Amino acid sequence: MSTHDAPAAPAEFEARLRAIGEAAYHDKHPFHVLMHAGKLTKRQLQAWIENRFYYQCMIPKKDAAILAKADDADFRRAWITRIVDHDGSAERAGGLSKWLALAEAAGLAREDVQSLRFVLPGVRFAVDAYLHLVESSSLAVAVASSLTELFAPPLMSDRMAVFETHYPWIDRTGLEYFRGRLVEAPRDAAWGLRYVMEHCTTRAEQERAAAALTTKCHILWSLLDSVYFAYVAPGWLPPLIDRAVSDE
Amino acid sequence: MSTHDAPAAPAEFEARLRAIGEAAYHDKHPFHVLMHAGKLTKRQLQAWIENRFYYQCMIPKKDAAILAKADDADFRRAWITRIVDHDGSAERAGGLSKWLALAEAAGLAREDVQSLRFVLPGVRFAVDAYLHLVESSSLAVAVASSLTELFAPPLMSDRMAVFETHYPWIDRTGLEYFRGRLVEAPRDAAWGLRYVMEHCTTRAEQERAAAALTTKCHILWSLLDSVYFAYVAPGWLPPLIDRAVSDE
Repeated sequence: MSTHDAPAAPAEFEARLRAIGEAAYHDKHPFHVLMHAGKLTKRQLQAWIENRFYYQCMIPKKDAAILAKADDADFRRAWITRIVDHDGSAERAGGLSKWLALAEAAGLAREDVQSLRFVLPGVRFAVDAYLHLVESSSLAVAVASSLTELFAPPLMSDRMAVFETHYPWIDRTGLEYFRGRLVEAPRDAAWGLRYVMEHCTTRAEQERAAAALTTKCHILWSLLDSVYFAYVAPGWLPPLIDRAVSDE
Repeated sequence: MSTHDAPAAPAEFEARLRAIGEAAYHDKHPFHVLMHAGKLTKRQLQAWIENRFYYQCMIPKKDAAILAKADDADFRRAWITRIVDHDGSAERAGGLSKWLALAEAAGLAREDVQSLRFVLPGVRFAVDAYLHLVESSSLAVAVASSLTELFAPPLMSDRMAVFETHYPWIDRTGLEYFRGRLVEAPRDAAWGLRYVMEHCTTRAEQERAAAALTTKCHILWSLLDSVYFAYVAPGWLPPLIDRAVSDE
């Protein structure tokens, strides 16, 4: 198959994008498997929460970078809701403050998490790559990189049950982030998928969209690699990162 | 200490930069320790060579980005030698072709290495971060990020001895890269250190230089994390990376 071939039919293209999630979405990562089996220690789960916060911080920035690529007010009107969902408004809390509430419910100090000082370098490099991927892609390909949202909803509902059952030391009020994503992710994913289907109409653009979604899956995977590697096994931190590795 | 403080004296600032290398240069990484103790399998050493090639490819690109920041022909005349050292000239082979010779001497197919198709995502994210670090820094801070060269020369001479003793299946003609760096790295490091000392003359710029050198150490460290994690222990590759993990 070459990029000069005719484009794949929509059903075939969508199946290809879904197969990437099937193979590479981070729910298959050993750290994630441990998390959902209730096997993480308190410190390990905290490490995930404080490192993942760096990813949460990047979401509105990458969405702003996507917004800046759009020439069309209809696109911007639809996409801007993502930024508002994460940053919140006068009336309601956004995803970022819900994530900080999760961190506090898990026993972390809000200031420690917000300062980003315990974020592992490998997590920074992976998450920063998401912004660079979006900045260097066409609008439709940048939208395609967000399609991991197609695979998120079942995970979010599992996660609330998992946290309530296996990690009862986390206050339930901390789980609002996941509840919010149950509504937001399917709406955003459906919109994004429709956009990608309508705008990736050449084989070359479809190839770039599939590559961007693969890279996005690798970003989420790499984030978990770093946390697993530092806090689960073989259990070392990079130099100049001063953080407890295990529960006291 | 605040960034409004008076700048550190040159000797104190240099000692601080050297202490960063002392704490965080990648010779302390467990993968590197295994390598120099002769404990890597053939496949593990090959994995390092093929992944590290992605870093080698980035060197002339980040040096070109630094060159593009310089207003001064004297600076550019000095710095351009780095690009020529890596890319070579009609008269002599450059670092990139010497690295490919090392890969072939270690039993890898040149085309596989050049294609970058086995480069781990975590390695890509870390190495790409080097280019972004340089692009987003002042000229003097970008130069500071190159000062890992201060710590490289003893490592290069050790490495040649280590490879000859412990990995005799690598043809000696493959070791020219390390021999070249024995001459180039001290020359470049001395030049870079002098430049950083002369141009980072405020406390704020010294802080940024120290932070850039720390990030650079974390980039090299993270590269080894990814290779260790995939090929040594616990031994899994990210999804959609189709590569043998162990010797056949």
